[in-house]
Amino acid sequence: MEEFINIGKRIPKTDAEEKVTGRAVYIHDLKVPGMLFGKILYSPHAHAKILNIDTSRAERLLGVKAILTGYNIPSIKFGFYKDNVPLKAGKVRSCRDEVAAVAATDPDIAEEALDLIRVDYEILPSVFDPEEAMKEGAPLVHDEHVGGKEKRPTNVLNLPWRLIAGDVDEARRQSAYVAEDRFRVTWVTHCCMGTSGCLAQFDLKNNLTIYSITQIPSLAQRDFTEALSAMGLQGKKVRVIKTMIGGGFGSKLDTYAFEYIAILLAHKTHKPVKIVFSREEEFFATSPRQPAIIDIAQGCTRDGRLTFRDVRMILDNGAYTSWGATTPSVMMMPISSLYKVPNVRYVAKCVYTNNTYSQAMRGYGNPQATFAIDSQIDILAEMAGIDPLDFRLRNANTPGEITPQNFKIITCGLRECIDAVAQKLDWRQNRGRRDGRGVGMASLIHVGGGARVYKSDGCGTIIKIDDFGTVNVFTGATDMGQGADTVIAQIVAEELGVRTEDVVVIHTDTDVCPWDVGAHASRTTFVAGNSALGAAKKVKQLLLEVAGQTLGESPENLDIRDRTVFSKRDPEKKSPLGKVLRAAHYTTGGRMVMAEYFYDPANENLDREFKGNLSVTYSYGTHGVEVEVDKETGQVKILKYVAAHDVGKAINPMLLEGQVYGGVAMGIGYALTERLISQNGKVMNPNFLDYKMLTAKDVPNVDPIVIETNDPFGPFGAKGIGEPGLVPTAPAIANAIYDALGVRIKDLPITPEKVLAALKQKTKPQ
Amino acid sequence: MEEFINIGKRIPKTDAEEKVTGRAVYIHDLKVPGMLFGKILYSPHAHAKILNIDTSRAERLLGVKAILTGYNIPSIKFGFYKDNVPLKAGKVRSCRDEVAAVAATDPDIAEEALDLIRVDYEILPSVFDPEEAMKEGAPLVHDEHVGGKEKRPTNVLNLPWRLIAGDVDEARRQSAYVAEDRFRVTWVTHCCMGTSGCLAQFDLKNNLTIYSITQIPSLAQRDFTEALSAMGLQGKKVRVIKTMIGGGFGSKLDTYAFEYIAILLAHKTHKPVKIVFSREEEFFATSPRQPAIIDIAQGCTRDGRLTFRDVRMILDNGAYTSWGATTPSVMMMPISSLYKVPNVRYVAKCVYTNNTYSQAMRGYGNPQATFAIDSQIDILAEMAGIDPLDFRLRNANTPGEITPQNFKIITCGLRECIDAVAQKLDWRQNRGRRDGRGVGMASLIHVGGGARVYKSDGCGTIIKIDDFGTVNVFTGATDMGQGADTVIAQIVAEELGVRTEDVVVIHTDTDVCPWDVGAHASRTTFVAGNSALGAAKKVKQLLLEVAGQTLGESPENLDIRDRTVFSKRDPEKKSPLGKVLRAAHYTTGGRMVMAEYFYDPANENLDREFKGNLSVTYSYGTHGVEVEVDKETGQVKILKYVAAHDVGKAINPMLLEGQVYGGVAMGIGYALTERLISQNGKVMNPNFLDYKMLTAKDVPNVDPIVIETNDPFGPFGAKGIGEPGLVPTAPAIANAIYDALGVRIKDLPITPEKVLAALKQKTKPQ
Repeated sequence: MEEFINIGKRIPKTDAEEKVTGRAVYIHDLKVPGMLFGKILYSPHAHAKILNIDTSRAERLLGVKAILTGYNIPSIKFGFYKDNVPLKAGKVRSCRDEVAAVAATDPDIAEEALDLIRVDYEILPSVFDPEEAMKEGAPLVHDEHVGGKEKRPTNVLNLPWRLIAGDVDEARRQSAYVAEDRFRVTWVTHCCMGTSGCLAQFDLKNNLTIYSITQIPSLAQRDFTEALSAMGLQGKKVRVIKTMIGGGFGSKLDTYAFEYIAILLAHKTHKPVKIVFSREEEFFATSPRQPAIIDIAQGCTRDGRLTFRDVRMILDNGAYTSWGATTPSVMMMPISSLYKVPNVRYVAKCVYTNNTYSQAMRGYGNPQATFAIDSQIDILAEMAGIDPLDFRLRNANTPGEITPQNFKIITCGLRECIDAVAQKLDWRQNRGRRDGRGVGMASLIHVGGGARVYKSDGCGTIIKIDDFGTVNVFTGATDMGQGADTVIAQIVAEELGVRTEDVVVIHTDTDVCPWDVGAHASRTTFVAGNSALGAAKKVKQLLLEVAGQTLGESPENLDIRDRTVFSKRDPEKKSPLGKVLRAAHYTTGGRMVMAEYFYDPANENLDREFKGNLSVTYSYGTHGVEVEVDKETGQVKILKYVAAHDVGKAINPMLLEGQVYGGVAMGIGYALTERLISQNGKVMNPNFLDYKMLTAKDVPNVDPIVIETNDPFGPFGAKGIGEPGLVPTAPAIANAIYDALGVRIKDLPITPEKVLAALKQKTKPQ
Repeated sequence: MEEFINIGKRIPKTDAEEKVTGRAVYIHDLKVPGMLFGKILYSPHAHAKILNIDTSRAERLLGVKAILTGYNIPSIKFGFYKDNVPLKAGKVRSCRDEVAAVAATDPDIAEEALDLIRVDYEILPSVFDPEEAMKEGAPLVHDEHVGGKEKRPTNVLNLPWRLIAGDVDEARRQSAYVAEDRFRVTWVTHCCMGTSGCLAQFDLKNNLTIYSITQIPSLAQRDFTEALSAMGLQGKKVRVIKTMIGGGFGSKLDTYAFEYIAILLAHKTHKPVKIVFSREEEFFATSPRQPAIIDIAQGCTRDGRLTFRDVRMILDNGAYTSWGATTPSVMMMPISSLYKVPNVRYVAKCVYTNNTYSQAMRGYGNPQATFAIDSQIDILAEMAGIDPLDFRLRNANTPGEITPQNFKIITCGLRECIDAVAQKLDWRQNRGRRDGRGVGMASLIHVGGGARVYKSDGCGTIIKIDDFGTVNVFTGATDMGQGADTVIAQIVAEELGVRTEDVVVIHTDTDVCPWDVGAHASRTTFVAGNSALGAAKKVKQLLLEVAGQTLGESPENLDIRDRTVFSKRDPEKKSPLGKVLRAAHYTTGGRMVMAEYFYDPANENLDREFKGNLSVTYSYGTHGVEVEVDKETGQVKILKYVAAHDVGKAINPMLLEGQVYGGVAMGIGYALTERLISQNGKVMNPNFLDYKMLTAKDVPNVDPIVIETNDPFGPFGAKGIGEPGLVPTAPAIANAIYDALGVRIKDLPITPEKVLAALKQKTKPQ
């Protein structure tokens, strides 16, 4: 058995010390000479005509350097649909619409200037319910938007998500049992500890440097380059420099109005301009997880084999369209491929409303879909009179399977995950007591080997080694707190036979780091890891070549371990790595060791039928939970939480567990407590008092179980595990509550009020 | 004829706008959170025992965070000879010896703390004259230093510079004419507009980041890594980040006490510590050009062919030994190879004194040696009754020559340079009038293709291209104001068929940039240029491969020009470069274009006899000057200045001329006005009022003549031209003064007092 030095080790994050001591530089800490502070004025109305904007009083305020509105900026369109602009002209479509922006020498002056800007509105009829918005005669959010064959004005986006595999109608007719339900999920937000912000700065040639907290440096660079063109700055260069990122979770997978505003203000003033969100802005002016109305039907045979799954979904897009509008492409994944289900139909509609617009959030649609699917699995199992554990085992995915969406399942530890959870929960013992305590479980599939949602799913790496054996790795990957740098360092160190601390990973600067599609789809360990591994393999080959010359041994007989090059057949022949490097370097015709590598996984874009092997490999997992529900208060208490994941290989068990802990905490919030309350398009609880994210004292002990299936395509066998930790949490809890009380809550969050109402309903005499 | 888009173009420095508007960040501008300010206490005595250091009063001053002395720091030795330490214990050996250092929250507090430190000294006998210092019984600067066969205590360094080629004594006997003279040159200093400084910062793992203005980032990294080891921080990493450098000229070719002090203070306080020199410190606490006493004899045949050159030199090393002590290795170059001279002998002694210690300065010994050689060429020509122009032409070097030091002269435009200067000066017309106006000339040889003074003479480059055709170049080279970034950008742009503004050169960070031996020996255009060109060639090959796939054309039929890839045989087949890059990138199995390259020139370290082909190619040049000397005041006025240089190929004529203008201004200062006045080891004129550097209004018009010999090994034919501009200035002026008045001044600077004294001496009745 191969023994690793770095892989599988519980190594703390490389930036842990800097972060816990407050030395790490976040966007909030960044200061540059001559910097101005930008602030944004938002619409107070969800839908209104802008009649007039009077900035004259604000302009006279000492310290104000520029005021921009939608009427004095060039036309920059952004977002997935290019339906958004930095500052709105004509009308506002949601309560977070940006109407004016100020740059001033001091943030308080900028704030005061906002108060002095007078905007006259004519309020328009609004629509906040996507089902209402679909109706004929509903207020149009984008007057010019047309759809359907007749190209008629509509609020329905032209994103015809539609997956069909097999014959669902026939399968339904053949089914012994059919369950049919409507589930609802609402807005939750990322709750990043670091609020959003950026700092834009032009050099004197009008090249832009933007300090950013983006998860997509290369795509942001492209977006900003397009914006410069719209500003008349064709051919100018954009450099994106990332500061420390105080949480991403998908919230930074797009570029946003505030970034374009900072760029426009910086260009107008010829000064660096920094915009940092307040906590309130972070709550109402960033994009939450999409709400959805999910109509789902599933059937099974008499012996509990799934026959079909039929899902219709309506998604509240909000007023503008981000990449988040593409979450149905990921929802298809569990719908088509969680458990073996031969016939699948999925149709989704994204609908404009005057609500805040939604965005990617950890799981990217998967938690919404899985809540419906795996809640209903329990319902269907009960109809069939089968223990849901047995039902899941009977339908569990297996290696070698090709799913209805044409996913090729290489490795799959789902069965082991289900078994492990059942054992930890004493499932047979504890299930079905209906005494206020109950157990539940739910499973997940997620992409674990990249996801070709964009045309490229690649990541580049450059490695150089200095004369002391320090390895510099320039990666396209983005460390946003998940520990990507550490994992990449471990992978490179293992391949090169050095220690993790010998590796310095640089991921912060588009001028230095090769291209990468971004930190999404749980792809970083797999894709950036494989990219780093590829570069490290090239570097190792070079190292063995130069060492071969020094040691008088052919490279194929050499290896490196713990900073020492040695002959595998003659243990006397060995040399410290640094010495080998210096010998190669300090001589006429000397060399130094460097290499570059670009890895683009062999996965596929979905085809016109939304089929294709989206990821090189897939991650599976099962969460199990034991709850106690207080029948008087409706309060749900989590007694035990087990999270089993097929991770391929745990590169760093500690960081992996951290991902699982964080995911579960977020998942419990999604299940039980979190909700962005929107009234007439306005966020009513934009603060941590009224928005109930779990705090340290709310988070239960989580028992993470790591199942290693050693994926043949993963770096050292690893799969992605960034998102899965929260995907099955809500249905597992909903199932446990059902087991405890016999009540089924189908809309999130499962508040005490809903539990009490359901109990009351249940005990009401029929 | 090939037409270049970027090469040979007068492109302004890429950082010109940032510099002239004050936006460029120099070490003086740099602030980091929590930064402390370091100040250094120097010895007031040139040679003294340290009896006691009392820091107690300084320690009690509010805001003082650390005080270090030679008695509470670990043993760190640095410098070429490892004879220097950051803070002195036991005794001080010069008036710039560092005795104590303070870190405080404010520079004024640090300064005040210095005043509160009491040091008791016992003054020791000193020696300031190197000839005195060589005598038996002279005060010993380093008591423990021994030399000679008997290993007896001595002030003479164990650096036995000794070059012998042919038989000088026999040649002397055979010579028709022999000239024999003693020349003297004294201290001049670099006069960098940006004073020295650094900022040292440890992370919480005790890895060091040092913001520096070094010319040798890779060697400095090594030096500081050794220092960390001495501090008990073995295996810790060092990152050197260069800010803008406000002038180098060789002054930053070593690491210095102030840098180690900043590191020690930063480590002691756990805070970033910045030390920036005052102008006064810059004058007395940095290392000037070496003074030398040069005894030289040259002979020639009746028809003016040089027969031999015999040089003995004594160099004042000062109290410690920098890389500057190796300047005799470069002095050998003109001594052996300026003009054809078959028999050569050179012996030099470097001697410890209690003066300030010297260092590399532009030309690295060459201006000192060339002053003696080419002043004496005129003397010898006059003895032989030959016009010095003819004398020089007769002895001029030629291509294909192998010089007595075994230099292989590939291309050589010396003859063309001499001719061009003669023509511009109307030499035949203007020479020999003795009416207070006169013309003079002098020539130079310098390394132009790197110089293997260190074991490696290499430089690495990494190139990546983004999807818009922006080319990122990471170079080991150091731009210290000479324009290296611009020249490298031009070279890469030319090879890749893009424009110079499409190329971003990053040279600032050892974590990012590959190794390079440093900005010295006029090597950057040649070595870093060839390295960049090598990487660009690899990148171009990749580009043509990916373009071949897009355009359906074989790569060998493709080329790139002005951002467009085109077929050389089918003009219809073409595509913008960015489009080709995106096509290659945004596809399954996509790629991006990157490459790395390390160039180490095929030159040689000097062997034990100090022979070898030190450089791949050599630069030649001739300066000519017409002067008018006021016989009443002794003032020398330069009427015309012509500087002809064989540059191989002018990559950027404007920057090249800038190097020549700057060199000539520095050379005129060396010739006429500049002198660091040292009395009893103390610099008496540490300011720009009393130290007379030429200002804008003092600099005459300079007529630069570019001779292009298209060196086969240079990038696009270029040779190095950083230093040559000042090498022959002093002898050219001395020769012109002689032509004007018939007086020969043999020690620099040629002040009005010396001219008047010589005139008086001449007119005295014999």
